[in-house]
Amino acid sequence: MKAVVYKEPYKVAVEDVDDVNIQDPTDVIVRITSTAICGSDLHMYEGRTDAEPGITFGHENMGIVEEIGSGVTTVSKGDRVVMPFNVACGFCDNCRAGKSAFCLTVNEPGTAGGAYGYVGMGPYPGGQAEFLRVPFADYNCVQLPKGEEHEKDFAMLADIFPTGYHATELAGVKPGETVAVYGAGPVGLMAAYSAQLKGASRVFVVDHVKNRLDIVKAMGAEPINFEDGDPAQQIHDAVQAYGVDRGIDAVGYQATESEGNEQPAVVLNQLVDTVRHTGGLGVVGLYVPSDPGAPDEHSAKGELLFRMGRFFEKGQTMGTGQADAKRYAHKLRDLIIAGRAEPGFVVSKVLPLGDAPDAYARFDKREEGYSKVLLQPAR
Amino acid sequence: MKAVVYKEPYKVAVEDVDDVNIQDPTDVIVRITSTAICGSDLHMYEGRTDAEPGITFGHENMGIVEEIGSGVTTVSKGDRVVMPFNVACGFCDNCRAGKSAFCLTVNEPGTAGGAYGYVGMGPYPGGQAEFLRVPFADYNCVQLPKGEEHEKDFAMLADIFPTGYHATELAGVKPGETVAVYGAGPVGLMAAYSAQLKGASRVFVVDHVKNRLDIVKAMGAEPINFEDGDPAQQIHDAVQAYGVDRGIDAVGYQATESEGNEQPAVVLNQLVDTVRHTGGLGVVGLYVPSDPGAPDEHSAKGELLFRMGRFFEKGQTMGTGQADAKRYAHKLRDLIIAGRAEPGFVVSKVLPLGDAPDAYARFDKREEGYSKVLLQPAR
Amino acid sequence: MKAVVYKEPYKVAVEDVDDVNIQDPTDVIVRITSTAICGSDLHMYEGRTDAEPGITFGHENMGIVEEIGSGVTTVSKGDRVVMPFNVACGFCDNCRAGKSAFCLTVNEPGTAGGAYGYVGMGPYPGGQAEFLRVPFADYNCVQLPKGEEHEKDFAMLADIFPTGYHATELAGVKPGETVAVYGAGPVGLMAAYSAQLKGASRVFVVDHVKNRLDIVKAMGAEPINFEDGDPAQQIHDAVQAYGVDRGIDAVGYQATESEGNEQPAVVLNQLVDTVRHTGGLGVVGLYVPSDPGAPDEHSAKGELLFRMGRFFEKGQTMGTGQADAKRYAHKLRDLIIAGRAEPGFVVSKVLPLGDAPDAYARFDKREEGYSKVLLQPAR
Amino acid sequence: MKAVVYKEPYKVAVEDVDDVNIQDPTDVIVRITSTAICGSDLHMYEGRTDAEPGITFGHENMGIVEEIGSGVTTVSKGDRVVMPFNVACGFCDNCRAGKSAFCLTVNEPGTAGGAYGYVGMGPYPGGQAEFLRVPFADYNCVQLPKGEEHEKDFAMLADIFPTGYHATELAGVKPGETVAVYGAGPVGLMAAYSAQLKGASRVFVVDHVKNRLDIVKAMGAEPINFEDGDPAQQIHDAVQAYGVDRGIDAVGYQATESEGNEQPAVVLNQLVDTVRHTGGLGVVGLYVPSDPGAPDEHSAKGELLFRMGRFFEKGQTMGTGQADAKRYAHKLRDLIIAGRAEPGFVVSKVLPLGDAPDAYARFDKREEGYSKVLLQPAR
Repeated sequence: MKAVVYKEPYKVAVEDVDDVNIQDPTDVIVRITSTAICGSDLHMYEGRTDAEPGITFGHENMGIVEEIGSGVTTVSKGDRVVMPFNVACGFCDNCRAGKSAFCLTVNEPGTAGGAYGYVGMGPYPGGQAEFLRVPFADYNCVQLPKGEEHEKDFAMLADIFPTGYHATELAGVKPGETVAVYGAGPVGLMAAYSAQLKGASRVFVVDHVKNRLDIVKAMGAEPINFEDGDPAQQIHDAVQAYGVDRGIDAVGYQATESEGNEQPAVVLNQLVDTVRHTGGLGVVGLYVPSDPGAPDEHSAKGELLFRMGRFFEKGQTMGTGQADAKRYAHKLRDLIIAGRAEPGFVVSKVLPLGDAPDAYARFDKREEGYSKVLLQPAR
Repeated sequence: MKAVVYKEPYKVAVEDVDDVNIQDPTDVIVRITSTAICGSDLHMYEGRTDAEPGITFGHENMGIVEEIGSGVTTVSKGDRVVMPFNVACGFCDNCRAGKSAFCLTVNEPGTAGGAYGYVGMGPYPGGQAEFLRVPFADYNCVQLPKGEEHEKDFAMLADIFPTGYHATELAGVKPGETVAVYGAGPVGLMAAYSAQLKGASRVFVVDHVKNRLDIVKAMGAEPINFEDGDPAQQIHDAVQAYGVDRGIDAVGYQATESEGNEQPAVVLNQLVDTVRHTGGLGVVGLYVPSDPGAPDEHSAKGELLFRMGRFFEKGQTMGTGQADAKRYAHKLRDLIIAGRAEPGFVVSKVLPLGDAPDAYARFDKREEGYSKVLLQPAR
Repeated sequence: MKAVVYKEPYKVAVEDVDDVNIQDPTDVIVRITSTAICGSDLHMYEGRTDAEPGITFGHENMGIVEEIGSGVTTVSKGDRVVMPFNVACGFCDNCRAGKSAFCLTVNEPGTAGGAYGYVGMGPYPGGQAEFLRVPFADYNCVQLPKGEEHEKDFAMLADIFPTGYHATELAGVKPGETVAVYGAGPVGLMAAYSAQLKGASRVFVVDHVKNRLDIVKAMGAEPINFEDGDPAQQIHDAVQAYGVDRGIDAVGYQATESEGNEQPAVVLNQLVDTVRHTGGLGVVGLYVPSDPGAPDEHSAKGELLFRMGRFFEKGQTMGTGQADAKRYAHKLRDLIIAGRAEPGFVVSKVLPLGDAPDAYARFDKREEGYSKVLLQPAR
Repeated sequence: MKAVVYKEPYKVAVEDVDDVNIQDPTDVIVRITSTAICGSDLHMYEGRTDAEPGITFGHENMGIVEEIGSGVTTVSKGDRVVMPFNVACGFCDNCRAGKSAFCLTVNEPGTAGGAYGYVGMGPYPGGQAEFLRVPFADYNCVQLPKGEEHEKDFAMLADIFPTGYHATELAGVKPGETVAVYGAGPVGLMAAYSAQLKGASRVFVVDHVKNRLDIVKAMGAEPINFEDGDPAQQIHDAVQAYGVDRGIDAVGYQATESEGNEQPAVVLNQLVDTVRHTGGLGVVGLYVPSDPGAPDEHSAKGELLFRMGRFFEKGQTMGTGQADAKRYAHKLRDLIIAGRAEPGFVVSKVLPLGDAPDAYARFDKREEGYSKVLLQPAR
């Protein structure tokens, strides 16, 4: 079958690879109809991880069930399904607590969490391919209405819509509250969108890229350009209060100052300033315990100069971590079906699988129109 | 009236000061029967704050109501009451949310929270004195059974018992869970005690002072001496699991390594290691945004090298801040009355008010027997 | 001053009554700009309660602060404020838990909760008058932006918007869930509206009055006419699932079957059928422990034939009781200010105070256009 | 293999039945070491259900894994395990929400929940036998430490310890609160025990059987004999307050008045009286939608005269339903291992499997010493 294979830094190719097949009775095989490229794929693409050549990328997958194992109960051939990016068992302590991003079964002892097509996340080939093997399929498949409706919207259920929603859960967003989101990339937009769905009264989104900020405004949220001055101060001025109730980090450790230098803790520290006393911070932007490309020796070990004193003085809380996409995907799907949510608006381009190498290269250069690419292998 | 007055670094005196009196219709005056010295009083005592000479210390106060204002409804002369250390209004946004340590009414605009006898916490003289003025008395007085029973236990309701309990709330301790507490001072012991009351299955307490660790053992908790090796590793070995469910920081920014050097983030970072993926951290040990005596320029601004990468990778949460003592004091009082809790076991000595200068000096030197002194002005 | 005074069953008059004035230092006097007539006022109007002639009606009040007591801290003359219908102290056990509808201070021992202008709810004259005395004013006044904007919307913060919202809290409505509301009167509409604000995927509203069902449709909710067949079955057919996630009773004990006979438990029992296993029921429609006008001797004592067996088998939960309007009013106000909520759409008519007798009579006859009347004494 | 087989009303026999075996790849076979007789088995035993002759009883099972299916991941031959009484899949909407007692996969469409050896709960033979087939074994087996320690305690994890704990969750018991439990049978005792583990300040248990009340007292809870007068009044007198915070029904529809007549709603209604305004009721005593043996026609349909008016007036909440034993079993197990809980104290007798017919007969007659019998097939 055809798949997007990592060759070397800055190079992927669409090649023939071995067919995937049922390995365990609880597996299914899914024919991929849509699979998105994620910002986190670029970490591997740019060679800033230990990803070995030969790995198939793709953790945002949906499609049609092609084959089922003998121990599968509720999934049938022909079902249209989307797979949350976390491979998970459904029955370990973390999965039972809804924390499927930290499954204790699917990866090496001492680690937690698995994913399709990602370095260090277990032996699961990605879905930027014609077919995908899905382990523990009764748990990992989310059923969708048959047909072709909402294809772009449903594809967002694999990762970024639940990830944005997760950010609002970590931050504790409640109806009527004010929210600040740092980062207007696809995840930041989904966080802002989720805050709106939950009934936030005002949602601010901080970035400096003009067309991103235009989308923010079009959504009915309030764009804050950090090049126009301290974003915390801009937001304080807007709310005329002690700060917003909740803050979200959708940027992560590769945050840059307005001059463009990487400053890994800048967003975290701005959030502390932006959010009121006793407010909540939700962090879904990635932070890593080891980063060889970091600007200093401490950041290289994931140790950041965090404004702990002020954070404590304000009595804030912080929730972090990869999203438990499975936990949210079902209800978010229901919002799409009911016509209340259309997360597919963030998809900037839909392409056949063969265009993946070009799409990766353009996305990596942040070319306009390539911010969220959906590959459709069946085309 | 007599009161403990701050004179200069390392010096307090018991002196005659102006009598306190009703200033607002919602005030009461309380004759103090018991008032404890707190570790946080030492920050002022040692001159490491902006506290001006002349301030009366004391935020852990209980006594008998002597006089009531015309707007007080549910407090009467003769009532025996304990006052949570946070002066609070009861009706602002934070108080209504139970976050009375961050009251928006009782201190300067832009700040949050008040306290008796503490620098920067508003114009409220402390209770290490014969009498105390209590503002918003209907809210700030917690009623106690008349008489003299449980005096030491009830005195702990002003601060350290609720503060220890708050730590378990911030960390999210639930029945059956495992908990690690860093710091076996009075607050750490109260945190461990609260975890036990809540039904924790195992409670570890980390320190290096022998008689503190003996108390830990006597409580039925498990002492961990950090001089015997990495405490996170010792605890991992004991639980034979990925880590404990919950971790508590009852140390704060003056944490030291085993060699005795101040290393402000050491406890936070050990907690990240000690707690399992998706577990919770509760931080009640003090962190400050400005510390002139800090070991380096960043710590001096409250910026600490926090292991954010690992914290995020583990998907942990962190809750912080001063305890909302009022929120917990009523139910903790009921446990004392029912004979289910006896937090007074941490009181190491009971002295008349006049002994305060000597008690401060000995406590500051960590003399045995002076870890938790209760002053009784009425003696 | 002028006030709406209850004279005898089916008769109120606008008369001169004694001016209200500051009785306690924590009181304020408010000049009423808007005060709504509530369905619950009709219970008294119709003589089905113990309300004595002479009582001033009105518990949905807003206006401008005219005078303040010496113990008031955060409310000033000239402030524009709305008063949640529950008179409450802010500091008793229930108020501190956010359950201000069950305040233990403002009414007789053994009871819980107070209200303006309502029989059995304490000695607090109502606000269908030129002026209102507000006890514990720092707690009971909710600040509004000055001016005249959103007058109708803000007036709904006194009762029905928070009451509808409370219903969704009792039922446990979460984003993406399906909700059924029984009753499309003002409170039922506000419950449906609140469910939408919280991100419900589908909201059904059950009634049989055509113009009410038209409003339901116009809101984007789904009208269910119970005269077209069993409403539970209609809803099951619509969702093609085991039932909706959450159900709300906005009808109460005066529920009628399609034939028009009172059948006090019919809505409760239909909710049990309508909601799925493990779902939640929120009951804000009134049930009373004593009802002389009941159709049978058991209902007269508030004992209803509830389908407990099926309720238990389905593992459902039920939350009940008057709304703690104060708890929700602040954040709902912020939604109005931000332009995200306009609850004033339920106001059917705005009239001067003098028209109250006529308005009561027409409302009691369910004349169209009188479903939610706002009186404006200052006109 | 040998098994306890239902023959006809009031008769079971230990007979040879077909061996159980692996039917699905996710099954395991467990050799039963301990299996308890439950009060709910008596409903079938007495012929008050549709249970057909030939059914094998037993839903409180533990033992050693003998054989595993090819799709089982984390359970191995030789593992010592206990099985929560609910057969459940782990991946349906209800299981993922922790509501495994309402699994949507393991029983007929339109119903929810399965169990071993119980009429109407799916095709799963019971474990009062030498061997048991366990479906979805990765989910349904709870791992135990190898060996023979705590056998009686661990056996209680299958049903009554989690069921008692569930009652405290439904009622919302929090540290420091007061709790009343109606019914001092095994489940009521486990509810009281769980309330104590959670840090309740006072726990009252209502019954009228002397030796049950003696156990209550020995546990450190407070016995209330309902033959000494209205239990609600007795408890009000004891707490000198508006009522207890939380109430638990561990009796169910076969409740009797002091005269011994069945009065299905008596406990529910007493709970409404016993619990304070805004308090919570947790109902784990069984209520059924159809009861041919009921004292009146309404009760026969599960319609009970519930004091809804008073319940609403007090603003109480009610949670109901079978316990999700799986949800609690792991942490309760950890409390047993840590020596903090010993639920085995309720076991009144341990017998070989062959004694089952005699044990059923004596238990059905409420003979002393037969209140909680543990059968050990391996003896």
